This record gives sequence, structure tokens and C-alpha cells, in this order.
Amino acid sequence: MTENEIAKIREKIFQSKKILITTHINPDGDGIGSGLALVNKLIKLKKKVSFINRDPLPKIYKFLPGSKRVKNLSKINENFDLAIILECPEIERTGNIIDFKKQVKYSINIDHHIGNMMYADLNVIDSKAAAVGIQIYKMMKGFNWYIDKDIATCIYTSIIIDTGSFRYSNTTPEVHLITAELIKAGANPEFIASEVYATTKNSTELFRRMLSELKIIKNIGWSFITKDMLKKTRADESDTDNFINSIRSIKEVDIAVLFKEYGKNITKASFRSKNGFDVNVIAKKFGGGGHKHAAGCVISQPLKKAEKSVISEIFQYYKDKIK
Amino acid sequence: MTENEIAKIREKIFQSKKILITTHINPDGDGIGSGLALVNKLIKLKKKVSFINRDPLPKIYKFLPGSKRVKNLSKINENFDLAIILECPEIERTGNIIDFKKQVKYSINIDHHIGNMMYADLNVIDSKAAAVGIQIYKMMKGFNWYIDKDIATCIYTSIIIDTGSFRYSNTTPEVHLITAELIKAGANPEFIASEVYATTKNSTELFRRMLSELKIIKNIGWSFITKDMLKKTRADESDTDNFINSIRSIKEVDIAVLFKEYGKNITKASFRSKNGFDVNVIAKKFGGGGHKHAAGCVISQPLKKAEKSVISEIFQYYKDKIK
Repeated sequence: MTENEIAKIREKIFQSKKILITTHINPDGDGIGSGLALVNKLIKLKKKVSFINRDPLPKIYKFLPGSKRVKNLSKINENFDLAIILECPEIERTGNIIDFKKQVKYSINIDHHIGNMMYADLNVIDSKAAAVGIQIYKMMKGFNWYIDKDIATCIYTSIIIDTGSFRYSNTTPEVHLITAELIKAGANPEFIASEVYATTKNSTELFRRMLSELKIIKNIGWSFITKDMLKKTRADESDTDNFINSIRSIKEVDIAVLFKEYGKNITKASFRSKNGFDVNVIAKKFGGGGHKHAAGCVISQPLKKAEKSVISEIFQYYKDKIK
Repeated sequence: MTENEIAKIREKIFQSKKILITTHINPDGDGIGSGLALVNKLIKLKKKVSFINRDPLPKIYKFLPGSKRVKNLSKINENFDLAIILECPEIERTGNIIDFKKQVKYSINIDHHIGNMMYADLNVIDSKAAAVGIQIYKMMKGFNWYIDKDIATCIYTSIIIDTGSFRYSNTTPEVHLITAELIKAGANPEFIASEVYATTKNSTELFRRMLSELKIIKNIGWSFITKDMLKKTRADESDTDNFINSIRSIKEVDIAVLFKEYGKNITKASFRSKNGFDVNVIAKKFGGGGHKHAAGCVISQPLKKAEKSVISEIFQYYKDKIK
């Protein structure tokens, strides 16, 4: 983040009274953590701040300070002086909850995706940042803002989500240096991990059933969660958030997919990959998106049909490359 | 580690030609990583260094630089100028592979257990160190030794094992600062995690079967692995090293136990705990040991009988405290 960018964001924040913060559809820990870090500070600056996303806050992030302020709406009928858009490579990833041109005076796009579409008045893109939370941390340091325990907790969460708890290749020395500062500021690693990676008796039983349905063909591993499985195990849909990573970490698997039955004709597919395989291109073919190694989409087909469509698409796309 | 301790260790290393390094029975990533960090450096100093433990090197640590030099013996018939004993709170934890009084001229005990028995000629104990690897790192920095990629890889591994990948309460800012240095020196987080936490198609199937046997009563969660389960899934015993952590992380579980059938009358029990419950006291009752939150023992009973003995002991010990 350049000094100019920091100065410009500061100017806009101080000029604005009503501020909207938003992140992408199906929000994750980076978008939520970064957004709440900002919310916690902006409230103290007496700003009228709204953190509104199209989709609900995943249950595992309810422990985050300020989480009660996160709302979800499909359409916002208010106007804002400033909108800060987090982790959205395209404006459409916000879920079009607002007309940014008509309802917002000034927009700032903070993101770490390569190929961000630079759709805002100010675009602050750092594709080397492991998480948008890292960008927010640097911005706050640039503002000379004091990072308290609440803010540190939010940014710490954004970092562990986007680095897979310091395991992904984006985990640079800088990530650890910033994390050291966040722990000094009060972030509690054990507590945060116990919340974010919490399993329960019921979610463990759901996980076991998911493993019973696991298929591995070539280097593609996939499974599914039906509504019936959720009901029988009394587990919560949000309990399944980390399941996909367990499929990804299997040595024989380069491309992992988890299908979730949302309705009779609505199936959500989550993708993870490693060893250079790109799942963003697959998710995009079904109207979704994300990163090269983590993406998702929603398909208007029943579970079994969606499974067939997606898996054959993967085989088709990678027909020369698949082992 | 004090300057005096560093000076004394340095003096002893430079005076010695034949050096023995050893760690506790059933060696883990901290003992192995710390030991190999030393081995990699001592070889370069032209020392005749042996890294010998009573029990074999777990398969998941075979990727570590120098791992081919790790040997296991129940009795050593050589003499050494110096022995460096890693992560052994009592001398017996070495498995009595050597007579330290008769066969070793000078012994150094480097450990981070509270209550270390101070059995060596020099005892360097730091109960605040998250891992013995952290002590070794500080010692090497104190020596002004260059930390190369191989050494960094070994120390990084010791840290992730003893901090649960930066999730346990011992993960201080210092742990992250040192980790940043290790990554700068060449440790590759993604590669190391993929080796240490590797799962396979077969180990995943074994894990599923282990979950099928999971019992949770009050706040105690336990399961078992039989020889038959290993055979049917074609998984390796070392694949089960991380299973116990999955039981520990279940919200309802404070005390987690995993029983492994080693022979008709040999059962190994691994313990993990949280929320203040002490499993070291339980393991000690069966002749084992470890830390408050991670311990183990070997019981000369068949699996089912050992399971009954241990679980009733836990209920007995904690009868007032168990929820």
C-alpha cells in the first residue's frame, strides 16, 4: 500500500459520515475479519458505519468482536458517502446489493486478487498480500491507528483463513511478523483457533458420513452433503466449512470438490486445489469464482446432476493434465 | 538460555570429537527436529555425531534433512565425549539406551518440561520455550551459527509440532518472530505441512473407521485402532499420529484418548487434553509420561482391557471435576 493510497483513504474516511463496508457473496473469514477490523475502529471515530453483505455471516465468525453489526441484504435502499469494498475482484462479487454509482459518493476497492477489475474510484490492489487483512493492517499502521485487542482478533482471523493457518505458500516471513504484532496486541491464537476450527460431536459424525461418500478418481477427490445428512446428524451447515480442506490434503488429490444440497434444484460446490491446478476456471464456468486454489459456485441443478456436470467438466478441462 | 549456558555448551561441543544426540522414547517432531538441526550443523563442524533413540523415526519425519542418520537401538555399546539429551524430563525417558555415567564423559540436558529432574552435568531448562527447537534456535544464534535451509526446516518442524501449527496457548509473539526468520532462511511452510500432516486415501479410510468407533461420555472422547483396521485399510501405523488431535478438538471433549493395538498384550495409549485437564498424571499411572496436555503410555494388556483400565482410571481421577 503506497503512501498516496494511505493518504487518500484517510482523507475519504475523515470526510465521510455514512460509510458502507461490504465483501463478497458467501463471505469468508478474510472479508469478515477485514471488515470487522474496520468497523471496530470506525465506530470509535463516531462514523455511521454499516457492514452489509448479500449473504449471512457464517456461524463460525460470530465470536468476532462487532459481529452483531454484520447484516445481510439483497438490496440496500440507503445512500452512503463512502463504500469500502473488500476482497471483490469484480463489482458483481458484491452480489449487486447496491448501485455504487448512484447510491455511493465515493468507492474504495481493497483486494488481493490478480486480475481485479479496478471498478472503484480508488483501487488498492496488492496481489502479494496473503490476505486483505494484511492490507488493512498496513493501512491502519499507515494511519498510525492503535491496534487494540478487538482489531487484532479480527485481522488474525483473516490471516489464518487465507493462509490455512500459516500452511499455504502465501505464508511469507512478513505474515509471521505481523502475526507476532497481533498477538502482542491481544489476539489469542488458541481461542481463535478453537472458534474457527471448532468441531462438535454432531459435526464429527457428519464428517464421518461425508468421508463414507468420498470418491477419488485420478487426482480428483469429491464428496457431498445432503439435507438429510444434516438432519440425521443434527449438524449445522456451517460445520461443513472446513470439510473441503480435508479432501484437499489427501496426497492423491490435486482437485477437491464438495457438493452441498441447498434445495431441490440448488447445489453449492466448493473447490480447492494444489500442485498448480486452477479451480477458479472451473467455478467460473458455472457462474462462480474465487482464487486459483479456492473457489466456489452455486448450480441450479439437483445435487446428483450438479455433481455429474461439475466432475465431467473437470475431466474435460484437464483431460491432458490429469494423472 | 543464559550467556553462561551458551558459553558452556559451545566449549563442550568444541572440546568433543564423538557426540551422541538422543531424545525420548516414541520420538516426536520436537525431539527429532531439534536433534536433526544439531546433527546437520555438527557434521559440518567435522564432529563424529550419532543421533540414536530407542524407538524408530516416525515415517512422517523422513523428509527432514539428515533423517537417514537417525538410528534406533535398545542398547549402545560405544563411548562418547558428549551426550546431548533432548526433551527428556527424566533420564529414563531416553529408554536407558546407554549408561550415561560410564559411557559418556559429559552430558547436557536440554528440555522445556516443568519439573525436569536435572540429571545431567549441565541442565538447560526453559519451561517457557514452546519447543526444544526454540531453545536450539536461540543456542545457535548465541553461537553465531549460520542457520541454513536444512537447519531452518528441522527447527520449523519442531515448532509446528509443539504449537499445533501455531494454535496452542504456547504460541507467543516470539514463536512467530523466530518462524519468520526460519522462513527467511529457507524453511518452506507449505512443503513441510504437506509432509507432516500428509493424509492419503488409505489413511483417510482408516480415520473414517476410527471415527466409527468414537465414544464420547461426559467430557472424555476416545477411540481405537486395531491391527485388523490397519490391515484392511492398508494404512500405516504412523498415519495415525494426528488422529488424536481430531478427537481433542471436538468441543464436548476435554480429555481425548486413542488406543492402538500393538500386539496381543501390548496397547499404546495417546492422551490429549484441554481446559486445564492434566493427562500427564494419567499416563504416569500407567508408566508413561509427557506434558499436561499431551502424554502417552504403553500398557501390557490387550486393547479392550487396556481401554477399560484407562477410561475407568480417568473417571476415577477426575470424578469430582468431570462435567
